[in-house]
Amino acid sequence: MSCNKIFPKGEPMVSNFTSKAFVNLLVPDTNEIYNCQAYEVLFEAGCRNDRHTHAGGQLLLCTGGCGYYQEKGKAAGRLQRGDVAEIMPNIEHWHGAAPASEFTRIGISPNTQKGTAIWISPVTDEEYYEATGGRANV
Amino acid sequence: MSCNKIFPKGEPMVSNFTSKAFVNLLVPDTNEIYNCQAYEVLFEAGCRNDRHTHAGGQLLLCTGGCGYYQEKGKAAGRLQRGDVAEIMPNIEHWHGAAPASEFTRIGISPNTQKGTAIWISPVTDEEYYEATGGRANV
Repeated sequence: MSCNKIFPKGEPMVSNFTSKAFVNLLVPDTNEIYNCQAYEVLFEAGCRNDRHTHAGGQLLLCTGGCGYYQEKGKAAGRLQRGDVAEIMPNIEHWHGAAPASEFTRIGISPNTQKGTAIWISPVTDEEYYEATGGRANV
Repeated sequence: MSCNKIFPKGEPMVSNFTSKAFVNLLVPDTNEIYNCQAYEVLFEAGCRNDRHTHAGGQLLLCTGGCGYYQEKGKAAGRLQRGDVAEIMPNIEHWHGAAPASEFTRIGISPNTQKGTAIWISPVTDEEYYEATGGRANV
């Protein structure tokens, strides 16, 4: 399944993602006026980010395709267009596309005065397919 | 021009908007964890909100149709799908749909610990059409 992105395709991520993901930093807030960044991310099928935390929390507004999200110690949850996920501060988690579908979502990082993402460890193929139900799954 | 909304159509606004607008409060942050609210708003053609300010600023991610935005003392700017508008804290402004087009956008209100919107005055039909180029304009 492919996605109809809203914003121009962003730059490819070169670290902390298992394969191809593109990030368009819509609101960089370099002057720290809003204490908030917003970005649109396109994950190619099968791509997920490494486990990480946000000191300020994170908000996901899902705009296309299918994806998954998993907090440490919990089952993974499926995300699709129209879903909203709230990630509490300092909760270890990962998110990404489904094995057979692209995934786009707008991400919001509030409370950036508390710090940026802390990256922890990659999600292995075994962990990812166990969480998402297998290689062919959308 | 009609829009393809991402999230379910929200509740109709009963004040501070000239005509029909629907707001889906995606992230209410009632527990004040994120100091940030996010919402999708559908403005019907010709609808605009009253002039107002946000102590924490506001971010607009435009997702469909055509709209306008005007800061006090400046010319109105046209907005369409894929545009991003950053509204500085305490700047008096209004936004809404174009005269002949619906408009949808995701709004983010960061720094909510600084307060909610302060509503000032409606935008008259004369002011609106002068800003947007007339009744038939998209």
